[in-house]
Amino acid sequence: MRKKKIVIIPKAIITANDKDDVLRNYAVEIENGKIINIFERDNVKLKNYDGMIFSYPNHILIPGFVQTHTHLCQTLFRGLADDLELLDWLTKKIFPYENSHTKESLRLSARLGLCELQTSGTTTILDMGTINHQESVFEELNRFKMRAIAGKCMVDKNDLYLPFKQTTNDCLRETKELAESYHNSNNGKIKYGFAPRFVLSCTEYLLKETKEIMKDFDGSVYHTHSSENKNEILEVKKMYGMENVEFLNSLGILSNNTVLAHCIHLSDKEKELLKNTNTKVAHCPSSNLKLGSGIAEIPNYIKEGISVSIGADGAPCNNNLSMLTEMRLAALIQKPIFGPTAMDAKTVFRLATIEGAKALNLENEIGSIEVGKKADLVLMDMDKVEMSVSESDESLYSNIVYSSSKNNISEVMIEGDWVVSKGKSLLTDELELVIKAKEELKKLLKRTTVN
Amino acid sequence: MRKKKIVIIPKAIITANDKDDVLRNYAVEIENGKIINIFERDNVKLKNYDGMIFSYPNHILIPGFVQTHTHLCQTLFRGLADDLELLDWLTKKIFPYENSHTKESLRLSARLGLCELQTSGTTTILDMGTINHQESVFEELNRFKMRAIAGKCMVDKNDLYLPFKQTTNDCLRETKELAESYHNSNNGKIKYGFAPRFVLSCTEYLLKETKEIMKDFDGSVYHTHSSENKNEILEVKKMYGMENVEFLNSLGILSNNTVLAHCIHLSDKEKELLKNTNTKVAHCPSSNLKLGSGIAEIPNYIKEGISVSIGADGAPCNNNLSMLTEMRLAALIQKPIFGPTAMDAKTVFRLATIEGAKALNLENEIGSIEVGKKADLVLMDMDKVEMSVSESDESLYSNIVYSSSKNNISEVMIEGDWVVSKGKSLLTDELELVIKAKEELKKLLKRTTVN
Repeated sequence: MRKKKIVIIPKAIITANDKDDVLRNYAVEIENGKIINIFERDNVKLKNYDGMIFSYPNHILIPGFVQTHTHLCQTLFRGLADDLELLDWLTKKIFPYENSHTKESLRLSARLGLCELQTSGTTTILDMGTINHQESVFEELNRFKMRAIAGKCMVDKNDLYLPFKQTTNDCLRETKELAESYHNSNNGKIKYGFAPRFVLSCTEYLLKETKEIMKDFDGSVYHTHSSENKNEILEVKKMYGMENVEFLNSLGILSNNTVLAHCIHLSDKEKELLKNTNTKVAHCPSSNLKLGSGIAEIPNYIKEGISVSIGADGAPCNNNLSMLTEMRLAALIQKPIFGPTAMDAKTVFRLATIEGAKALNLENEIGSIEVGKKADLVLMDMDKVEMSVSESDESLYSNIVYSSSKNNISEVMIEGDWVVSKGKSLLTDELELVIKAKEELKKLLKRTTVN
Repeated sequence: MRKKKIVIIPKAIITANDKDDVLRNYAVEIENGKIINIFERDNVKLKNYDGMIFSYPNHILIPGFVQTHTHLCQTLFRGLADDLELLDWLTKKIFPYENSHTKESLRLSARLGLCELQTSGTTTILDMGTINHQESVFEELNRFKMRAIAGKCMVDKNDLYLPFKQTTNDCLRETKELAESYHNSNNGKIKYGFAPRFVLSCTEYLLKETKEIMKDFDGSVYHTHSSENKNEILEVKKMYGMENVEFLNSLGILSNNTVLAHCIHLSDKEKELLKNTNTKVAHCPSSNLKLGSGIAEIPNYIKEGISVSIGADGAPCNNNLSMLTEMRLAALIQKPIFGPTAMDAKTVFRLATIEGAKALNLENEIGSIEVGKKADLVLMDMDKVEMSVSESDESLYSNIVYSSSKNNISEVMIEGDWVVSKGKSLLTDELELVIKAKEELKKLLKRTTVN
């Protein structure tokens, strides 16, 4: 069934196109989930329009945010693993908790995360699951009509927490089965993300073989962590005599469809490798601060031509999943190092939208408001006391990056479907979800044993 | 007229008392603006209670936040001065804008700021005004029933932007008149804050004489900026052969009722001076990052026994006035430097409440939930998808500091008066205010001339 056409008329459109156009007094027309027209509203008679017209005189329209590193499976553990270093955080908290997930607790975790992501304006994610029950994540992605590249995480060795691993064979077999079931599912909105956890928890064979399997799944992504923590890097060096990115390169893993989360501590050689292979960096500012990991020199990466996009990482190391929080921090943390003009609002906004799309090789479909792209759109209400009252283009970007919170997110659309209205999810009852999640967490904590 | 007694029954009370008590299943009783009783609710029959009972089974009750450095006069300029260094920021933007304020534009600026502050849970501020029309600020503080220490700022020399200054005599005379009119006004909720802008814009005589005048106003505060920017410090050194805090000390200004905003770059000797004089540091993390000023080594200050509290500074260098944003950042920015266990959530929460009260010498009146203190209280709704679903005490602090936004602020009370309900100001219509502020900003920009 073809859906009725709709027209959205906001106060301004922040397009994130190549020219960074800000359009005022324009309308966006949508049919079958796609943007089919962008026109000056005064030029067209909308009186007898054959469709629905949504007028938002106080709202700005922006592309949905694209997050290139999340862990929906961890949302349930928010606030349970504060003030710890990465390796402690994994050993004492996150691995034991993830290992205790049932199909149902994982479902609730994903649901909490998706609800928060959408109500704060994110419409696409690259998500790393846990080792079991990945079907729950895919089912919830469908339920939330989310655009996602997702996959189970693979762990075939684990000195940090012994029980949390599978055999190499099980990792690869399950991954292949899941990719066969879900890649390009849900009208193409879901793709598979192959996800070895990180070098220290994967055998060389697993890391390499994953790259082989991927070849059968066009449009999929190789998604792993790298160079997050100095101890992690020392361990990798001890084991393989190379730095992290160098080692991944030696296995042939760096490529245009590889996304590496974090990349905080890189040698010049590693930066060169990332650039030359067009491997993507998923920058996670909150997580990198909270775990005390460090500050990636993002302005230099950008200058050198390395692809940078943004992710909130998991809820226990952030403790938010909002792109608005990440954008503000991505801008602010660089300024004492690179000066106050570094990472201006417009640059950061692009990282959160079109650069995210590019990192996932989805830039022809999403990441900006242009004719022919999918209608993944967010309406933000800026007429609030905590926003700039200036009407300049500059202030629009400033408001989005420096001043807004989920309080400003009003309506969210994914491929033409409204998923959030007046700041509330249309796909789940939030209070009911919180109550259910509390019950599931209690049960999970009972069945969790720490080393 | 004596007001009716009221009882508030929240899910939990985060007291911020000396023992950091978290009380569950307790009620707080309030009469005439004061907390008169805190009791286990099961022990008392509330059936025939002679007053009003407010039950919040999903909310936590916390002390109102205390911000020790704000500029209400700058709220109107939010988003107009991004991505600049301090001295440029002052010369090209803030001084010219402040200089263009009329009574009415300053009123709107203060109103915007107060509305944002209260709806994000702040109930007390130490505010620095601009050089003219300070009555507008006091009138708005009254209108908003705010607790504040406030005063006009004094500038009697200005190489950065010539038109923005007064004669020394006018500075001191107006200040004295304002202090006589407003100190201890509004039932004692308002006190005067003597506010020389900073060393570079004040003569030695002004800085010293201000300290003299203050002696007639018991409970007032000496409020200035110090050691924010490396160029500022170099200038001071060139002029006086001393570092900033050392120079203030040589004038006899350091004391138990002196608050210095920023203090990012301090010598060991200066730290010693702050500690020995019990001079207070107002830490402004967002502002310090955004202007590229640097990161104050707050964990060391605390360890050394220096008083540290938190302020959002002005809207154009933040660009928020929410204590929730400042707390999260105050915690996160220290972790890459001091490790992930530094600045845990509970410590930061104390800086935002009781330590703020101590900085203003108001710790016997506000800053914690204890019998005998003023009822400056905030109810936060934590049953939201972006919060931890854990019920532990640790998670309560984690939620407040790491996960919450003004989205969670539900009700706010100052001295027994509700000023915010369901997240909305009870004292102004927010949309109407935004519209008026836009008009005032347009007029102000027209009359502003930059050097």
